[in-house]
Amino acid sequence: MFSFKVDEEVSIELLQQHHKEELYDLIDTNREHLRKWLLWVDKRKSAEDFEPIIPIWIRNYADNNGFDAGIRFNGKLVGMIGLHYIDWKNSTTSVGYFLSEEAQGQGIITRSVSSLLTYLFEQMNINRVEIQCAVNNVKSIAVPERLGFSKEGITRDGQWIYDHYEDLVTYSLLAKDWNNK
Amino acid sequence: MFSFKVDEEVSIELLQQHHKEELYDLIDTNREHLRKWLLWVDKRKSAEDFEPIIPIWIRNYADNNGFDAGIRFNGKLVGMIGLHYIDWKNSTTSVGYFLSEEAQGQGIITRSVSSLLTYLFEQMNINRVEIQCAVNNVKSIAVPERLGFSKEGITRDGQWIYDHYEDLVTYSLLAKDWNNK
Amino acid sequence: MFSFKVDEEVSIELLQQHHKEELYDLIDTNREHLRKWLLWVDKRKSAEDFEPIIPIWIRNYADNNGFDAGIRFNGKLVGMIGLHYIDWKNSTTSVGYFLSEEAQGQGIITRSVSSLLTYLFEQMNINRVEIQCAVNNVKSIAVPERLGFSKEGITRDGQWIYDHYEDLVTYSLLAKDWNNK
Amino acid sequence: MFSFKVDEEVSIELLQQHHKEELYDLIDTNREHLRKWLLWVDKRKSAEDFEPIIPIWIRNYADNNGFDAGIRFNGKLVGMIGLHYIDWKNSTTSVGYFLSEEAQGQGIITRSVSSLLTYLFEQMNINRVEIQCAVNNVKSIAVPERLGFSKEGITRDGQWIYDHYEDLVTYSLLAKDWNNK
Amino acid sequence: MFSFKVDEEVSIELLQQHHKEELYDLIDTNREHLRKWLLWVDKRKSAEDFEPIIPIWIRNYADNNGFDAGIRFNGKLVGMIGLHYIDWKNSTTSVGYFLSEEAQGQGIITRSVSSLLTYLFEQMNINRVEIQCAVNNVKSIAVPERLGFSKEGITRDGQWIYDHYEDLVTYSLLAKDWNNK
Amino acid sequence: MFSFKVDEEVSIELLQQHHKEELYDLIDTNREHLRKWLLWVDKRKSAEDFEPIIPIWIRNYADNNGFDAGIRFNGKLVGMIGLHYIDWKNSTTSVGYFLSEEAQGQGIITRSVSSLLTYLFEQMNINRVEIQCAVNNVKSIAVPERLGFSKEGITRDGQWIYDHYEDLVTYSLLAKDWNNK
Repeated sequence: MFSFKVDEEVSIELLQQHHKEELYDLIDTNREHLRKWLLWVDKRKSAEDFEPIIPIWIRNYADNNGFDAGIRFNGKLVGMIGLHYIDWKNSTTSVGYFLSEEAQGQGIITRSVSSLLTYLFEQMNINRVEIQCAVNNVKSIAVPERLGFSKEGITRDGQWIYDHYEDLVTYSLLAKDWNNK
Repeated sequence: MFSFKVDEEVSIELLQQHHKEELYDLIDTNREHLRKWLLWVDKRKSAEDFEPIIPIWIRNYADNNGFDAGIRFNGKLVGMIGLHYIDWKNSTTSVGYFLSEEAQGQGIITRSVSSLLTYLFEQMNINRVEIQCAVNNVKSIAVPERLGFSKEGITRDGQWIYDHYEDLVTYSLLAKDWNNK
Repeated sequence: MFSFKVDEEVSIELLQQHHKEELYDLIDTNREHLRKWLLWVDKRKSAEDFEPIIPIWIRNYADNNGFDAGIRFNGKLVGMIGLHYIDWKNSTTSVGYFLSEEAQGQGIITRSVSSLLTYLFEQMNINRVEIQCAVNNVKSIAVPERLGFSKEGITRDGQWIYDHYEDLVTYSLLAKDWNNK
Repeated sequence: MFSFKVDEEVSIELLQQHHKEELYDLIDTNREHLRKWLLWVDKRKSAEDFEPIIPIWIRNYADNNGFDAGIRFNGKLVGMIGLHYIDWKNSTTSVGYFLSEEAQGQGIITRSVSSLLTYLFEQMNINRVEIQCAVNNVKSIAVPERLGFSKEGITRDGQWIYDHYEDLVTYSLLAKDWNNK
Repeated sequence: MFSFKVDEEVSIELLQQHHKEELYDLIDTNREHLRKWLLWVDKRKSAEDFEPIIPIWIRNYADNNGFDAGIRFNGKLVGMIGLHYIDWKNSTTSVGYFLSEEAQGQGIITRSVSSLLTYLFEQMNINRVEIQCAVNNVKSIAVPERLGFSKEGITRDGQWIYDHYEDLVTYSLLAKDWNNK
Repeated sequence: MFSFKVDEEVSIELLQQHHKEELYDLIDTNREHLRKWLLWVDKRKSAEDFEPIIPIWIRNYADNNGFDAGIRFNGKLVGMIGLHYIDWKNSTTSVGYFLSEEAQGQGIITRSVSSLLTYLFEQMNINRVEIQCAVNNVKSIAVPERLGFSKEGITRDGQWIYDHYEDLVTYSLLAKDWNNK
């Protein structure tokens, strides 16, 4: 029902209970593609598994503490994007995202993050936006690189993926970077 | 951040903490106009008074139990609209709204409710949408009348307003009415 | 343990855990009779199913927000009666009830509601008492009719019963009606 | 609204919010008399102080964990009686009570406890009922003595009263004592 | 991780999740020995059964309301000791304990309780420490006897053990007893 | 009551309510020294301000999610140390600490962290331990440097301190680093 418009093709929508089949289809048809970087993929085995999670995504938004939302490309659900948290004491947030395999190569995530950045810096006065990716996740890394984020360092063994740890790389963009663009 | 687009001029937005001054201005400049029908108006005495309420509005949405949201007309906050609850056992909801004095006469509420009805009946499979207004609130009553709702009855002394009871009139539109349009 | 005395034959009792078998017997022997108008009947399949519900009935009473209680006729549990909620902002409540098949025809509900009305208007200063019944539930409707309630209107498709919607009729009695008796 | 009938003169009533003035009057006119044995007396300084406590008394009842209720003598509120807890694992409860000064000498507490015992042993299958009194509280001690309780021992410094500790004496009655009466 | 040192051989440790196998072994190898006096023994059927209980033991400590902790003898887990509650209004607490069969006869519990008493009276200003044992539990009773507690009385049928009630004996030590030692 | 022994001079103690004056003295006599790096210092204006915080520190421990505890040097409270959280999904934790001005220069923090590391890697099977310090906090940085942590990167504007942002530097030690020592 409620969406954040990125551009004529792309929008970000707060998903509701009646979207759960659509969401499950997205995950299920991209299982192999997504489980390389996301630990929760194996746990989602039916549309019903999303019933208790959808309210949590929106409750974070209610508490001014981030959100998880769907990405639509020409109306079709093709991925998700969100803010993992908003740390108001330090005015910092962290962006996460994933995209279906077939929707890749059209800049959908880059356009989405770019729009979010405008809102975060200009409407919400956030000072620091962070993106963390597995160091081997080349496509994910391309997003902050393209958007002018600074690479800050490597978190060794930062994330457990099924049977091994991945190192994470941290990128950030500060309000002052944004204003100097 | 997240909006429901009604048409080129009108949108319905889930308000966030950083909208609280804008929201307070709306109430404060329409105090006399609004307190005729709304009991809570006198209790909102500063922008800060909205801090604990804004999360409740969105948490209802998270729980699939309605919402309260702002109405924007060409970007300006001019009113609010919401679903007081969603009774899923009986597939029923109830719409409420108010508009600033200066924004009246342009069909903003009628257009907003009409768009909501489409979403409620077609995306969310609601069976019954109710609107209750004070029997003396002529402008409010005009909305369900214009949209083809049926008048069902009078709730005597249904609402306490500061120093007296108002009778309420109930209008409803059913899924079958909608489909027969 | 705690009862509201209606008259020499009838009393209303806050049911406790040790009444759950007695309560289950009442429901089980009236299953066909009750499921015509009550959606929850099919869900009560053993005395244990009442264990989590009994505390909710009394907690509403603790919170000054209504109650659900048993009706005893010469000591025997023959039905239930309650206030679905108390809306203190508008000083309104709504009465609900059901009776076993064999106890019908002795005015047990009418006498119970009548006693409750005295308490609600005279001790608790309630302004409006509502009774809603399915339009086809002739016996239920007879209660407010007999007690001088006003018929206010029809809620179309107001209640889902297993496989269809029922229209509801709303009756009300106001403090001023009561005082003018 | 809901009462436990002791006899023609005495009843025990679950107090509601609309009884708070009556309850405050009882405490306030017996302040000196009650504060000798009860620590909370000094904290009740207005009828409003009872608003948050009344729901707790009834919620214990909802949770099958005892109750606190008013004692009425010919309709007048003259004291309180309750079960501090019900320990279902060990089938044990503990009775507490107080009476206004002017209502003393008519066996009101003894009659009330006696009726409660019948209900506890015969309807609720409690095995052990305990009464603890300060060793110097002669009137309180007379109740379990009269009802055939056994004296079990002294809890040294068992209760803090404003500026000193009181020793407590424990009396008990078991189901087997009751049945052998 | 966190321990209370009794002496060179004995310490009391706040158990954590990674101790659950060690704890289960203790219970499982002493099942017959422990179930004579402890009702919960039969309910612990695997190390996982301790997962929800361990946090409760420490949360009581967080709330300044007692604790349950392991007893180590030369590093080996041989029993548990705790304060069932701390009643700050009356400055009273109650000590409980059990020991494995093979660790008995070395004064481990007596030394542990003695150290606790020093801390309770001297650091925490507790006025009254209570120990309750089944009247037939000779080894348990020896502990307060040896430490100079006073025997106060018998709680008839005070504890349900699987198929019968046990009488309990209460011992106490007051701050003034401690200071007069 | 419960402590983690570092060596003959140093121990880490779970603080309780009766330590609050001692804790307040530590903060109050080091106010200027501590507020350079800690945002909460200005908010602690009396011993009572610690009453609601002490339970939170221990409840984290109960939930297996880190802790905050006092550091004692020859019995005197000289600082605090803790784990901000334990992320069990990724087997990661983060250590934080502060020391009074006068206790500096004796390796108290380094010895404490070193002991904690042994427990974390060997008893709790943690994979990654992180330390974050402000880049200008030379004394804090010396701790991970001395203990062989790897420097991973800079979090620009990572922490708000009263009137400006500080950059943070992240150090880590992994289980494999520990085992290769």
